[in-house]
Amino acid sequence: TIAAAAERLLPKPQGVLSGKRIVITAGPTYEPLDPVRFVGNRSSGKQGYAIAAACRNEGAEVTLISGPVHLSPPPGCEVVQVRTAREMLEASEKALPADVFIACAAVADYRPAFETTHKVKKERGGLTAIDLVENPDILATVSQMEEGRPQLVIGFAAETDDVIGHAETKRARKKCDWIIANDVSPGTDVMGGDRNTVTIITGKGDEALPEMPKDRLGAYLAQRIARKLSAG
Amino acid sequence: TIAAAAERLLPKPQGVLSGKRIVITAGPTYEPLDPVRFVGNRSSGKQGYAIAAACRNEGAEVTLISGPVHLSPPPGCEVVQVRTAREMLEASEKALPADVFIACAAVADYRPAFETTHKVKKERGGLTAIDLVENPDILATVSQMEEGRPQLVIGFAAETDDVIGHAETKRARKKCDWIIANDVSPGTDVMGGDRNTVTIITGKGDEALPEMPKDRLGAYLAQRIARKLSAG
Repeated sequence: TIAAAAERLLPKPQGVLSGKRIVITAGPTYEPLDPVRFVGNRSSGKQGYAIAAACRNEGAEVTLISGPVHLSPPPGCEVVQVRTAREMLEASEKALPADVFIACAAVADYRPAFETTHKVKKERGGLTAIDLVENPDILATVSQMEEGRPQLVIGFAAETDDVIGHAETKRARKKCDWIIANDVSPGTDVMGGDRNTVTIITGKGDEALPEMPKDRLGAYLAQRIARKLSAG
Repeated sequence: TIAAAAERLLPKPQGVLSGKRIVITAGPTYEPLDPVRFVGNRSSGKQGYAIAAACRNEGAEVTLISGPVHLSPPPGCEVVQVRTAREMLEASEKALPADVFIACAAVADYRPAFETTHKVKKERGGLTAIDLVENPDILATVSQMEEGRPQLVIGFAAETDDVIGHAETKRARKKCDWIIANDVSPGTDVMGGDRNTVTIITGKGDEALPEMPKDRLGAYLAQRIARKLSAG
């Protein structure tokens, strides 16, 4: 929008992330089966948007790559709207290089193997299954870049059981630097809610944070990231 | 909400639908596969919400049964929030009897055959397909009620090819009174947009309406429904 373009022309706030470039993915991806049907993930995008806003407030140049959500773009961030995992990967690669890459989006691991341009009709024999193929792994792809890998690559792990164990495994497998693990079990109210309880897994010990509002967690992470970048 | 409850206590507007009870479904349904994944339909809910508001403005008592959308509840309507097709059917049956039933929701024809309470892990062999089972058909169920069938049952047909042909077939198969057919092909911009172009299929001739804003179409339909009810 014009307002967003104007905001980007204003002097950036000065802060602990001044001079740093940060790329953040947020929200779900929706993977189409036909023009009306899709396979999707649940994600409000609130946590990713909060991190983007916090990093910008600390002076960073932020590109936010967002799946379909109903949130206002954080002031001063460049926002790229995408729908599918493939579009999100493409936008991420285009937005790099950066000092930090934060994969906060709930990316669909799989997409329908076939997408039709016409609506699948129920009466034509019906659908008995949706064949799936694996989507590209955005976090693993960026973590394992041979050239221009961001200094700090951060993933999220939304889990429902053995949260820390699964997150540690994910960190090792994807080769990212940090994993921010949270429990999204039904009843925790994390998904769509305004609060979050996470553990930061750095490979050098786990940092379990108390429950806090998603925007406060964003502000905390901006500080934590700045500390890590200056420590090298 | 308290505001909605207070509004329902206010005198209803007087209009051509005064004394009539109308149940409307709107929005998509999302059918869960696990706590984070679902199979969904695309629908903003705008058309159904506009029809609900218009019917209420003409004095009807309106129950709006809504899938997951990001719209404000129309003033004075009772709104029931649901997520899946089965929940939508249950809420519809509970909201009946009524003079008119309008099935505007984009209900998922199919749902995952199995729903797990824990997130399906990619590394455990992976997903190769989502097995599906048929969802209940809300429009056909209400159209074919043996007792207490609403006097006028209206369905929507969002099609991408042979729009009128498919809609005529749907009207006959489901045994509803009217079908409101619209073309949602990519590029028509109907889905999520603020305008709509429909044909009303009544079994006694088709009425092709010009493109108009969704709220104007709602107002037109409220009048058209009132005419039909008074004609008997």
